[in-house]
Amino acid sequence: MYKTKAYSAASATSPLASDKINRRDPSERDVQIEILFCGVCHSDLHQARNEWQSAIPTTYPCVPGHEIVGRVTKIGSAVTKYKPGDLAAVGCLVDSDGTCPQCKLDHEQFCPNATFTYNAPDKHLGGVTYGGYSDSIVVNERFVLRVPANLDLAGAAPLLCAGITTYSPMRHWGVGKGKKVGVVGLGGLGHMGVKFAHAFGAHTVVFTTSPNKKEDALRLGADEVVISRNADEMRKHAGSFDFILDAVSAHHDINAYINLLRPDGTVTLVGAPEQPMPVSAFSLLMGRRSLSGSLIGGIAETQEMLDFCGQHNITSDVEVIPIQKINEAYDRLLKSDVKYRFCIDMASLKAE
Amino acid sequence: MYKTKAYSAASATSPLASDKINRRDPSERDVQIEILFCGVCHSDLHQARNEWQSAIPTTYPCVPGHEIVGRVTKIGSAVTKYKPGDLAAVGCLVDSDGTCPQCKLDHEQFCPNATFTYNAPDKHLGGVTYGGYSDSIVVNERFVLRVPANLDLAGAAPLLCAGITTYSPMRHWGVGKGKKVGVVGLGGLGHMGVKFAHAFGAHTVVFTTSPNKKEDALRLGADEVVISRNADEMRKHAGSFDFILDAVSAHHDINAYINLLRPDGTVTLVGAPEQPMPVSAFSLLMGRRSLSGSLIGGIAETQEMLDFCGQHNITSDVEVIPIQKINEAYDRLLKSDVKYRFCIDMASLKAE
Repeated sequence: MYKTKAYSAASATSPLASDKINRRDPSERDVQIEILFCGVCHSDLHQARNEWQSAIPTTYPCVPGHEIVGRVTKIGSAVTKYKPGDLAAVGCLVDSDGTCPQCKLDHEQFCPNATFTYNAPDKHLGGVTYGGYSDSIVVNERFVLRVPANLDLAGAAPLLCAGITTYSPMRHWGVGKGKKVGVVGLGGLGHMGVKFAHAFGAHTVVFTTSPNKKEDALRLGADEVVISRNADEMRKHAGSFDFILDAVSAHHDINAYINLLRPDGTVTLVGAPEQPMPVSAFSLLMGRRSLSGSLIGGIAETQEMLDFCGQHNITSDVEVIPIQKINEAYDRLLKSDVKYRFCIDMASLKAE
Repeated sequence: MYKTKAYSAASATSPLASDKINRRDPSERDVQIEILFCGVCHSDLHQARNEWQSAIPTTYPCVPGHEIVGRVTKIGSAVTKYKPGDLAAVGCLVDSDGTCPQCKLDHEQFCPNATFTYNAPDKHLGGVTYGGYSDSIVVNERFVLRVPANLDLAGAAPLLCAGITTYSPMRHWGVGKGKKVGVVGLGGLGHMGVKFAHAFGAHTVVFTTSPNKKEDALRLGADEVVISRNADEMRKHAGSFDFILDAVSAHHDINAYINLLRPDGTVTLVGAPEQPMPVSAFSLLMGRRSLSGSLIGGIAETQEMLDFCGQHNITSDVEVIPIQKINEAYDRLLKSDVKYRFCIDMASLKAE
């Protein structure tokens, strides 16, 4: 066990502040990673402020961060996939039972015994797991990912959550050439969705409430931009989409998007509005349409996504911040005042 | 054009009553069918009483009925598939454009120019189409179905709507051996769902609010019956279903069923509650679950279903009534006082 620097929340109402936490010494299959960059996900804020109290109550201190990119500093004796000096990444998962049907399908995200990167029971040290707002992390090599050398590391970090969260459902529901694909909401998740849909060769349509995002959406790869508050514009697209990725966490009318699907089309939620969403059964019946949800992806698919990003030079658009600005970044996140993801340069933590 | 006897509603508030309607003389590709039995679908009542006013307003007089079984009496010169004396059936569709992408996929039910069996614009005679509460019907052979000779005709009639409505989604979502399948609601649709799930070899669980339906559910083929008001019983099945067919039109909590799905599971609605259903996004995200809808099936699949029923001797459990009791049957339908489908013996209309 060793001490490492971190930023943690001491309570739901405390700002994040400098702290020291324990990490385990790498055991046989473990990889120790010096964290270079950590993306800032909206989940970090939800968890730090205990906003998911009913589903996943927060244990304090809470060290968020699950978009981790760094360099291997030490390996256990049985580690074969990594060596010191390698670039490495860690996403939302650090363990799973490896034996359940979901693990056998490489869907570790659905393993009933999956361990999430922060605020999950830590079976090694007790207490809860601590995330990437810290100097280093120790993770079983099965949950460590390779980072293509050509990618900008700050822009690569958000791929570990925002990237896989949008890549996985698009792959699952067959987004590709000849398909018409919508992305609702141009934020941290949405902007990755646009890049992937475009890279997969789909006709990509961005739905946004903000006319001033139009130019940026086109730059990111959209073929068309629809201002979702304009009923006429929406009506023109009725019954025409194969797949719509809905990345909006705020309350909104989901039926407006279900009605844009062609028969057998799917709207997939990757944002989770807090209140239940009223869904019209009729809209689903007419055309055998589906409303579904998707949650990150498995480890193998996360690696596939990173490799795809390496081949297509895809990264997240990030605003790099020192960790000392994390509380300010959270405030700005709530106002969607970032294009499109904050990423912490962890060198700033070393300097403390 | 010729006159034929029928029962029609003259307005949203009129009881159905004896009437005479026009039918076209069979043209080249048409088949004229003497109607022997017609099932009574809840849609008949909705349409007769104009309860779908906002979606599909009713034109009066309205002759409902889209679960039609009869005998061919006359054929057009170009008809090849039927000859006088053959058993024949007609379901919810009597025409489609035949050229759109959905028709090319044999999904005529999603054709934007599909003609429904009643209350749809009649391009031959003007006005609207008239359904099966009548002596005879004339339909293009492309929309006429063969009836296996071994099936009881009264019990076969409801296959044309209740049958295909439950068969099609089960086929589409891969219900079969090794799958755990739920059927919510044991009515006209639900009881067919149980028969099919059982025949497909799935482990079949019926959800019902009525403990007194348990015995009947087991008789119909259920392996287990869950009283859905019992939270403990429901909890035991959490995360375990591959597919749930929801055949309940009354308001109910759909999230209770979504939470019973295993990863990648689907709840499919075949009933359409009038009010939007509040859906928890979280329940969908956790396990990449889907909520979908399904609407009857295409003509080829309807024939496949009838042939399957012939092979497995599957029919609907019916209470046969004379057409003179149709208004009473509607009243009982509203109280779910039928096991499980009314079917009109059309000989009663001839006797008038």
